[in-house]
Amino acid sequence: MRNTHIGIIGGGQLGMLLVQAAIPFPCRVSVYDPNPSCSAAVFSDSFTQGAFDDEESIVEFGRGCDAVIFEIEQVNVGALLELEAAGVRVVSSARSLEWIQNKALQREVLAQHGFPGPHFERLSANDLGNYSGPFPVVQKWETGGYDGKGVQIHADLESLMTAEPRDSLLEENVAIEKELSLLLAANDSGDVVFYSPTEMVFDSQLNLLDYLIAPARISVEIQSEMEVLGRKLVEELKLVGVYAIEFFLTKSGELLVNEISPRVHNSGHHTVSANVCSQYEQQIRIALGLPLGSTQMLHHSLLANLISDQSSGLTNYVGLEAAYALPGVQLTFYGKNEVRPGRKMGHAIIQAGDLNLALEQLQQLRTTLTITSHD
Amino acid sequence: MRNTHIGIIGGGQLGMLLVQAAIPFPCRVSVYDPNPSCSAAVFSDSFTQGAFDDEESIVEFGRGCDAVIFEIEQVNVGALLELEAAGVRVVSSARSLEWIQNKALQREVLAQHGFPGPHFERLSANDLGNYSGPFPVVQKWETGGYDGKGVQIHADLESLMTAEPRDSLLEENVAIEKELSLLLAANDSGDVVFYSPTEMVFDSQLNLLDYLIAPARISVEIQSEMEVLGRKLVEELKLVGVYAIEFFLTKSGELLVNEISPRVHNSGHHTVSANVCSQYEQQIRIALGLPLGSTQMLHHSLLANLISDQSSGLTNYVGLEAAYALPGVQLTFYGKNEVRPGRKMGHAIIQAGDLNLALEQLQQLRTTLTITSHD
Repeated sequence: MRNTHIGIIGGGQLGMLLVQAAIPFPCRVSVYDPNPSCSAAVFSDSFTQGAFDDEESIVEFGRGCDAVIFEIEQVNVGALLELEAAGVRVVSSARSLEWIQNKALQREVLAQHGFPGPHFERLSANDLGNYSGPFPVVQKWETGGYDGKGVQIHADLESLMTAEPRDSLLEENVAIEKELSLLLAANDSGDVVFYSPTEMVFDSQLNLLDYLIAPARISVEIQSEMEVLGRKLVEELKLVGVYAIEFFLTKSGELLVNEISPRVHNSGHHTVSANVCSQYEQQIRIALGLPLGSTQMLHHSLLANLISDQSSGLTNYVGLEAAYALPGVQLTFYGKNEVRPGRKMGHAIIQAGDLNLALEQLQQLRTTLTITSHD
Repeated sequence: MRNTHIGIIGGGQLGMLLVQAAIPFPCRVSVYDPNPSCSAAVFSDSFTQGAFDDEESIVEFGRGCDAVIFEIEQVNVGALLELEAAGVRVVSSARSLEWIQNKALQREVLAQHGFPGPHFERLSANDLGNYSGPFPVVQKWETGGYDGKGVQIHADLESLMTAEPRDSLLEENVAIEKELSLLLAANDSGDVVFYSPTEMVFDSQLNLLDYLIAPARISVEIQSEMEVLGRKLVEELKLVGVYAIEFFLTKSGELLVNEISPRVHNSGHHTVSANVCSQYEQQIRIALGLPLGSTQMLHHSLLANLISDQSSGLTNYVGLEAAYALPGVQLTFYGKNEVRPGRKMGHAIIQAGDLNLALEQLQQLRTTLTITSHD
């Protein structure tokens, strides 16, 4: 009996992996997305095309569901709150999206609750010249940023004054030792479980995310500090659902909260095979009102994005056979029909009992598999 | 790009789990089944309603696919052979289905190739009285049997003579010590991989399958004998795809082949979490012409069916919350809308580092979860 109906808002790769996790549960899944050929559409029971800011259309979609999961932040919050009021379970908490959607408001809420973070100022579009802190400074648009767009580092006031005038969060440019992510799941009975923290490793030459390692190479003290902050966040802000908290570990050893995602997260892809219960299954369990699953780790993992080359056009995977022959490598493709230069097309999870061996596998994978366009 | 199109014939639980395994691959999946509310239909890209014996309709469905996977034996073989001739990759091998579909023919082929099996006679419907072997004897209909129907033990000739007249395989009633299953995957490059054998444990009081254990509690010699027979089967009969070989280990220590399934199998459900690459993923890899995955076992498992009680009607799961709270228990439901007395509604995979602990978990699950009908 698929008598419980889950609606997923956002049919990208996170939505697709939520559908996959839902299959063994006694439920059926519908997907809402502006793009009918999104990754999740072909695997859902029904698909609704609609814009993420279309309040009416989201409410209509959600009213037919027992629970709604959103997999992107840019959803109309009013619609989610209305659904919640109508008795639809919304995960993660709709209320949290209100302050998370706006980077400056998010920073203010975190500061009000005493979470450690970089020094910041909030300035409206026309007041950027009033910035009074030190340089270099990181400018983040309050809303509308994505994939690097809307984040800029300014060396001096002159640079800041010539920036696109947008309501902005101006943040201290922290000296970062490591970027870390803590994934947690909380239900409405007050239970909270944590996954082992993930560490983002950057390619210092290309200044690009190279891969993620789970668990992160940090001390027990730092891990425990992260979990204390995670629990405080859940309790003080009454959060239900899966959340990712991104941290900076500074060169001076301070742990600062960078930002919060109220949803399943890229830094948790590996939990599909590396942990007993994945982040996706946790979100489905919470949507269905079921107890949380075990976050026990089965093996260490390395996680890397699969990025297309510089071409554009219909997707063409070159070297698939050789890539699938690599032992310990698990590939997930997002089913995107078209490549654009440097588009995220999938990810690889690599079993990393031995990190050096895993890095060799990753190196091999990168020389083996090319995602390009058909001529 | 979902440019490779896999068609699955049969949308029951095996079809549903094949779709789940296919999601991360660069492919899309369509399902063919007589029942539009079958388990797999809601998760497939497109669904085609049609009968399993409708040659024309199966050919039409398959011609739109690059590869076809069947998940039940009762498929029109002519259609599959026609598709193969037209260049559609059919897995497992269509040719093997010809002799596997008929229990007597299957036994003859196995005997011709020197596989050890029980003594048998093949008798047509009107010749059952000519049976010359010992009693008790096991009568199996050549075709048309399912779920216990079509298998009968006769104590004497009189009982056999009063049986429904059907073309039959008459088999020695072997004294069984253990029933075992060997799951293997073979591709067309000649690679073969084996999963750890599974052992079926019967409740001797109810005379019903109680649970399965993987790996089976057998000697290395027996396991190696099973694998030698498995490899011989693949090589001599030129098999490609996932196959399950069911064995009897007799009280006198002989290993006999019971029967072959040319598809993913109930005795391999646990491979979803207990092994690096599941039986479902192997079948998808073979369908896509990709290398086989690793069958490495991550932990020991116990596998049990979830059966509904004696009621009929719309499915009602009672005790779901408590069931999902049991640690180490992974539940899979087949999304069947209606229960019938004793219907197979799902299965549980239990991590079994400690078998006694796992059996306690199973006991708890059975007292916790009831699958019944709404009043």
